[in-house]
Amino acid sequence: MCLVYVTDEPDEQHPRLREVTLRDTLDRVNEALSRSIAGVKSAGCPPKLAEAMRYAVFPGGARIRPRLCLSVAAACQEDEPATSNAAAVAIELLHCASLVHDDLPCFDDAEVRRGKTSVHKVYGEEIAVLAGDGLIVLAFECLATSNPGRARRSVDLVEIVARSVSAARGIIGGQAWESETAIDLKRYHNAKTGSLFAASTEAGAVAAGADGAQWRALGARLGEAYQVADDIRDAFGDSDKMGKPVGKDVALGRPSAVAELGIGGAKARLKNQIRRAVEAIPECPGAMALRDTILFETNKFLPPEILRQAA
Amino acid sequence: MCLVYVTDEPDEQHPRLREVTLRDTLDRVNEALSRSIAGVKSAGCPPKLAEAMRYAVFPGGARIRPRLCLSVAAACQEDEPATSNAAAVAIELLHCASLVHDDLPCFDDAEVRRGKTSVHKVYGEEIAVLAGDGLIVLAFECLATSNPGRARRSVDLVEIVARSVSAARGIIGGQAWESETAIDLKRYHNAKTGSLFAASTEAGAVAAGADGAQWRALGARLGEAYQVADDIRDAFGDSDKMGKPVGKDVALGRPSAVAELGIGGAKARLKNQIRRAVEAIPECPGAMALRDTILFETNKFLPPEILRQAA
Repeated sequence: MCLVYVTDEPDEQHPRLREVTLRDTLDRVNEALSRSIAGVKSAGCPPKLAEAMRYAVFPGGARIRPRLCLSVAAACQEDEPATSNAAAVAIELLHCASLVHDDLPCFDDAEVRRGKTSVHKVYGEEIAVLAGDGLIVLAFECLATSNPGRARRSVDLVEIVARSVSAARGIIGGQAWESETAIDLKRYHNAKTGSLFAASTEAGAVAAGADGAQWRALGARLGEAYQVADDIRDAFGDSDKMGKPVGKDVALGRPSAVAELGIGGAKARLKNQIRRAVEAIPECPGAMALRDTILFETNKFLPPEILRQAA
Repeated sequence: MCLVYVTDEPDEQHPRLREVTLRDTLDRVNEALSRSIAGVKSAGCPPKLAEAMRYAVFPGGARIRPRLCLSVAAACQEDEPATSNAAAVAIELLHCASLVHDDLPCFDDAEVRRGKTSVHKVYGEEIAVLAGDGLIVLAFECLATSNPGRARRSVDLVEIVARSVSAARGIIGGQAWESETAIDLKRYHNAKTGSLFAASTEAGAVAAGADGAQWRALGARLGEAYQVADDIRDAFGDSDKMGKPVGKDVALGRPSAVAELGIGGAKARLKNQIRRAVEAIPECPGAMALRDTILFETNKFLPPEILRQAA
């Protein structure tokens, strides 16, 4: 695997071991997601809707948020893997739901998502609306049912996750800012991207019985970094390789770090945000390993071909 | 107030007192809903979205489900009114969300709902999709935050409420059955209408610390009765008086008790279902008062003018 590092701190020590750990976490996320979606079908969901929900979730993207959630839980020495799994699953289901609804004709009218035809183009708009709704509800059902012996953690997770996708300051609100004439750029990005990243680290900590509030900054800063990387990918990426349309920010006059700062400024901001994210890791048993994982992961925010083009 | 009774058991004893109790419960529901929606706005929701969410919830319809929830909580001698309020609010928010999404152009493309222009006709489709999403998430946020000292009840309520709107057997699944060629009519009605009624009674009991499972039958039977009444209203109602389009079942070839049984058969089924619902009330401190309330309420399922037309 070819890695072109964004930061000055390449992970040169155990790249092979890191790859294995990454694969394990990804498998764990996908297996938990698969069980959750299979449960909907076996509980009597109408066939088309069940199929559309699976299609919206599999095959997935990089699963960055749920893997971040599990990495934080591991760093906090998780004692209830079922609870961490539920947190990771809920976060990814909500992310997938937002993609399905954001792709609808009234928003982006996207033909392609994650390299394949978008949900509403395959199943029709009505099933796409319902698949998004169904994924939102499934996320909360997972959190409520994952661990009957840990009601306090479960209810805290429902609150954290609900807030992160809420109309107020979550991803639903973030999407709605695009329908306003006056946008506060920071608030928009915090809502649309930062909120779910912040919830990923906070929820990972809470699932492991740690103090979630201490873990929000890490996720929030990673969310900011991811947003800048996304702006760069949108400006310099290739639709086929990205698996979704690019150049939309410019075409739709959307706010973008590249438009605001130029490519050099955007890359510098990305580097700085990753540094600040790593600095925000609270003291915990697995802090060093988590730091390495985050550097490894954030180095993949921009694929090598984008870095070359943007050079 | 003119009442034409559907059952043979008119409530002749304390109609004035009953009206006052009804008004109190309705006020309680509306005040709790209003606080919940106001919280979204004050937490920084984009203005159009916040306005659309309020528009989708106010002014409301009869608030049948949340009032049923509070009536059951009262019958079980509720000890945590904030928890009962949250359950009632969550149920109504989810009902309102389903109306906003069901009215979208890809479904009914309804111009009118509750006697006023539908959400997407006023705010546009994109804000309507997000308002529905926002209401769904708000419902779960309310349940998680209503009563920090009662985590067990809160998490049980999240599970009950999530299941009742789920893609599997809840209202989302119910709506999706309309996109299938082969429909099991009973399963369709259970999902589309019965599930949220059953959750209303179960959640009311759980919010009051009672055994929710015993209370599902009451709600399920009321849901069946409501569905039959809705079929009759659709067949014989007047769009202006109903505040929404009528005659859609026939026009869209949807399953309907009137089409299946004729008007006489449908009325007989409604009467029988109300009787069976009342028989399903479990033993509890307020059983007699609840029985009276339910007879009073179900007598309003069909407005007098519909009963006259259907006579």
